[in-house]
Amino acid sequence: MITLYGGPTTNVRKVTIALEELSLNYTAKHVRLDLGQQRQDWFTEMVPNQKIPLLEDHDRSMQIWESGAILTYLAEQYDAHGKILARTGNQRYAAIQGAFFQAAHIGPNLGRLNDQLRASDETKIPKMIDLLFVEAERLSEVLDRMLADNRSFLAGEYSIADIMHYPWLAAARELQFPALMQKNGLLAWLDRIAERPAVQKGMASFS
Amino acid sequence: MITLYGGPTTNVRKVTIALEELSLNYTAKHVRLDLGQQRQDWFTEMVPNQKIPLLEDHDRSMQIWESGAILTYLAEQYDAHGKILARTGNQRYAAIQGAFFQAAHIGPNLGRLNDQLRASDETKIPKMIDLLFVEAERLSEVLDRMLADNRSFLAGEYSIADIMHYPWLAAARELQFPALMQKNGLLAWLDRIAERPAVQKGMASFS
Repeated sequence: MITLYGGPTTNVRKVTIALEELSLNYTAKHVRLDLGQQRQDWFTEMVPNQKIPLLEDHDRSMQIWESGAILTYLAEQYDAHGKILARTGNQRYAAIQGAFFQAAHIGPNLGRLNDQLRASDETKIPKMIDLLFVEAERLSEVLDRMLADNRSFLAGEYSIADIMHYPWLAAARELQFPALMQKNGLLAWLDRIAERPAVQKGMASFS
Repeated sequence: MITLYGGPTTNVRKVTIALEELSLNYTAKHVRLDLGQQRQDWFTEMVPNQKIPLLEDHDRSMQIWESGAILTYLAEQYDAHGKILARTGNQRYAAIQGAFFQAAHIGPNLGRLNDQLRASDETKIPKMIDLLFVEAERLSEVLDRMLADNRSFLAGEYSIADIMHYPWLAAARELQFPALMQKNGLLAWLDRIAERPAVQKGMASFS
């Protein structure tokens, strides 16, 4: 039995997409960020970083947080055929590399940019927004290079690399981020991922 | 035969520590960031993100970037006894979780803070520095919680979680980051990791 502690956020949707891809049943527990539940003691004891998602796998006495680690866990435990992560070989490490790239670059940069764009005038830092837009532009070029030579997916075959990126880039497209809107390869990739039934189900979670 | 493309940076030192822990020989190739070599075509073709480290494992025709992915690769290929990453079980995922936490939070926040502190007066953004210091303080509390109950290492046993964090926190201690200097548990952890011969060798690489 799996419980997912989450809410309607990009990082949570990585996990719900993966759960749907692997046809795993789960119970969704909504952690109300608007009420600060992620900072309450009961949650902090499980997640010292006080962030969703947290996945609990009762059958294996496992609690795990950080979306990239959760996807790795789910793949290693429940993905015998390598649907989202190859068991061995170069394809496996291309996927893990793509997952770390999202965690280290796309998430932190777009996350902070999103926070700043939504900030009140008093807390907004225009020069910081400029800096983050420059980096977002650079990162979109990196992703474009990862899709060069008409590759369909970020790490060769469909994988956790695509799942890590999709909710973030879908949000960026909704906001019409200029860096993204000029990249036809990336837009085609977004359409390709959006067509998957598991992605559609996963993106509708907690809403 | 392993070639490591790197330089004297925190992210490269994660990899050299891991190589030393696993007693793996490697050839160090210095990519001169001061000359912009990481943006030259030959390097961009291998690393679309234009950042070091890059590890090439000639025997397995593997090129891999993103330090977290490199450590995972090295552990899965060359760490049969789980010295830096358990093969199975909850300890394995605690380590992977810690690795992603470093990649997603510690690296991006301290990296940008370091850039800003070294920036010229014209490019410095004081309000952004304030914001990054607040987050650095929060992150040091998270790490402190991860070491609660007298745990010796960030993920239970010594692992890639410690290796990912050590070069970054060692640099923060050198800069006397206030958020770090008040955390006795974290300072004791730093001393504990610093004692390891492989860590000492790995930290001296590319210098």
